[in-house]
Amino acid sequence: MKFQLIHKDPGSSARTGRIDTRHGSFYSPVFMPVGTGGTVKGVHKRELKEDINAPIILGNTYHLYLRPGIDVLEKAGGLHAFMNWDRSILTDSGGYQVFSLAEIRRIKEQGAFFQSHIDGSKHTFTPENIVDIQRIIGSDIMMALDECTPYPCDYKYAEKSLGLTHRWLDRGIRQFRETNPKYSHEQSFFPIVQGSVYKDLRIRSAEYIAEKGMDGNAIGGLSVGEPVEDMYAMTEVVNSILPEDKPRYLMGVGTPANILESIALGVDMFDCVMPTRNGRNGMIFTSEGIINIKNAKWKNDFSPIDPGTEIFTSKQYSKAYLRHLVISNEMLGAQIASIHNLHFYLWLVGEARIKILSGEFSTWKNQIVKKLSARL
Amino acid sequence: MKFQLIHKDPGSSARTGRIDTRHGSFYSPVFMPVGTGGTVKGVHKRELKEDINAPIILGNTYHLYLRPGIDVLEKAGGLHAFMNWDRSILTDSGGYQVFSLAEIRRIKEQGAFFQSHIDGSKHTFTPENIVDIQRIIGSDIMMALDECTPYPCDYKYAEKSLGLTHRWLDRGIRQFRETNPKYSHEQSFFPIVQGSVYKDLRIRSAEYIAEKGMDGNAIGGLSVGEPVEDMYAMTEVVNSILPEDKPRYLMGVGTPANILESIALGVDMFDCVMPTRNGRNGMIFTSEGIINIKNAKWKNDFSPIDPGTEIFTSKQYSKAYLRHLVISNEMLGAQIASIHNLHFYLWLVGEARIKILSGEFSTWKNQIVKKLSARL
Repeated sequence: MKFQLIHKDPGSSARTGRIDTRHGSFYSPVFMPVGTGGTVKGVHKRELKEDINAPIILGNTYHLYLRPGIDVLEKAGGLHAFMNWDRSILTDSGGYQVFSLAEIRRIKEQGAFFQSHIDGSKHTFTPENIVDIQRIIGSDIMMALDECTPYPCDYKYAEKSLGLTHRWLDRGIRQFRETNPKYSHEQSFFPIVQGSVYKDLRIRSAEYIAEKGMDGNAIGGLSVGEPVEDMYAMTEVVNSILPEDKPRYLMGVGTPANILESIALGVDMFDCVMPTRNGRNGMIFTSEGIINIKNAKWKNDFSPIDPGTEIFTSKQYSKAYLRHLVISNEMLGAQIASIHNLHFYLWLVGEARIKILSGEFSTWKNQIVKKLSARL
Repeated sequence: MKFQLIHKDPGSSARTGRIDTRHGSFYSPVFMPVGTGGTVKGVHKRELKEDINAPIILGNTYHLYLRPGIDVLEKAGGLHAFMNWDRSILTDSGGYQVFSLAEIRRIKEQGAFFQSHIDGSKHTFTPENIVDIQRIIGSDIMMALDECTPYPCDYKYAEKSLGLTHRWLDRGIRQFRETNPKYSHEQSFFPIVQGSVYKDLRIRSAEYIAEKGMDGNAIGGLSVGEPVEDMYAMTEVVNSILPEDKPRYLMGVGTPANILESIALGVDMFDCVMPTRNGRNGMIFTSEGIINIKNAKWKNDFSPIDPGTEIFTSKQYSKAYLRHLVISNEMLGAQIASIHNLHFYLWLVGEARIKILSGEFSTWKNQIVKKLSARL
């Protein structure tokens, strides 16, 4: 993987760059649709590629490991072949899912012990086998196993957890260096900064991670319930330490406003389930603000979902029609909302890139953030 | 609506013809995907049009009347505008759903009284208001309100019910003749032959209906649990009476084999939820036979879903991938299966048309029926 910094915004820490993997080149800031278990929920590969035009998607190691299982993925020749996706893939390390989904879990020095949320079967993720699993998945960017602390989290636990995350990182990097890709493309390995909402821990973690010299660096453990000011403050302090010549990935963030504010703080890569998960529930992100499509006010509104966007779903379907589908629990409602919202998120980071290049990012961001957050 | 008989098969009662509505021309035998509440479940309009290439779809009056409601449909300018579908639409009369879905129902001379399965609200369908509702929906082909008898059904009840269905038909035809389309296109009105599995009742009903001289005629009350031999026997006797110069529509039928056998008996139009409903549950109809995609045997089968078809879903996704999606209850699994199965059904009736034209229908049908019914 290569990262080339193209332009820095004069009025903020925002920057645009180019990321090259063996599955394509794309520009940052970038938003990665979440393809949980080998599928972006409700979205055909063709739509993801041709309509949403996603250059990179995210896969969840936890889900893929449980289903279809690494035996199937290995026989398929990796996740790219299994889901027939020839662009880039980043996989998380499964740490977050173990803490949020698994039935019973125990964290030990060795790794995370948990029971599957599907059938209760027992499994272990270690810093080493998480590398091995992601070698089999064949993602272009693999993530280190970390402990994602919850919010709130007392200082003592956060500090202790951070030590573990750092020791796990070293073991993960060793495994990464001692193993080779299973397929014909190289893989990168990103460490994750933790430290809850404690500035000194975040600094310690960012310094620890920066000096590993990996291809890119991630910020984890945010957007887990803390006040948004804390999220921005932690991101800012971490980004002041993480190297400028490597992409910075803020995991699991967030609303359109969160994304623009974090771009202003120097973040390059994002992923979030919000456009798809909230979309399935009727929340539609548009260039004019946020729509709750279930509201009665859209019942007889036969105008396009978002006249400001070019995606086919917005041109071909009306608000009233989408409202009917979502209220009736029709799959097509979730499908339309997911495609629309993902297209909107990718349009948004694309606009951000243009504004960074033209030097207007800060002014534009401050104007549009208010508009995008408005409830229509 | 116009129907032009093009060719009759020398070895059976199969025939091919051309149907013209104000929303397009298409050839029969034809299969109509079921678009229950203004959507073919899990299928985008674009896929229905460009990939599945459906010239006509079916809408359920019962569902549309309850949601989004006729007020919304009227304001939208009818169902074509509401769902942005510019090809033909046939709507059923709601009779079948009242009997199969509604919470509480009572059949009186005046009409069917029922409570919504959604919110328990009370409603009445009469032969007249069913015409009015379908005028508002604006379907190209409207159906008469009938009583769909269950199976088994004793002779006495079937005879009594048939009398009611015929009286309702006369009232429906009167309402149809005394009202005008609400939009710029004309609408046709099809009566429905009933009579359970009793040959004399079916003859009586077919004769009664044939002499109404409507644009087309339907056969209802079959595929409700009776032995398949009874279904074919009833279809055969009814088709020997229904006029040859009008399309014959066998409602709610059926498996690929049912469809081919019924084409051989002179049926021109079909609809069935099987390709979508069974598809969502993992039943895949292919040119080689029926697949239960949940079976372990497909776990590592990375071959196309059906190498024999041209649809994008079959080219882009493998059996192993589809199996994973269906087992994981991923929406995309239901979407792929629905598109695949609908494409298969439309391909099948298309092949039937070609074989009727070339005079090979009976030989071909007898060969392929065995293959299509095989469990792979």
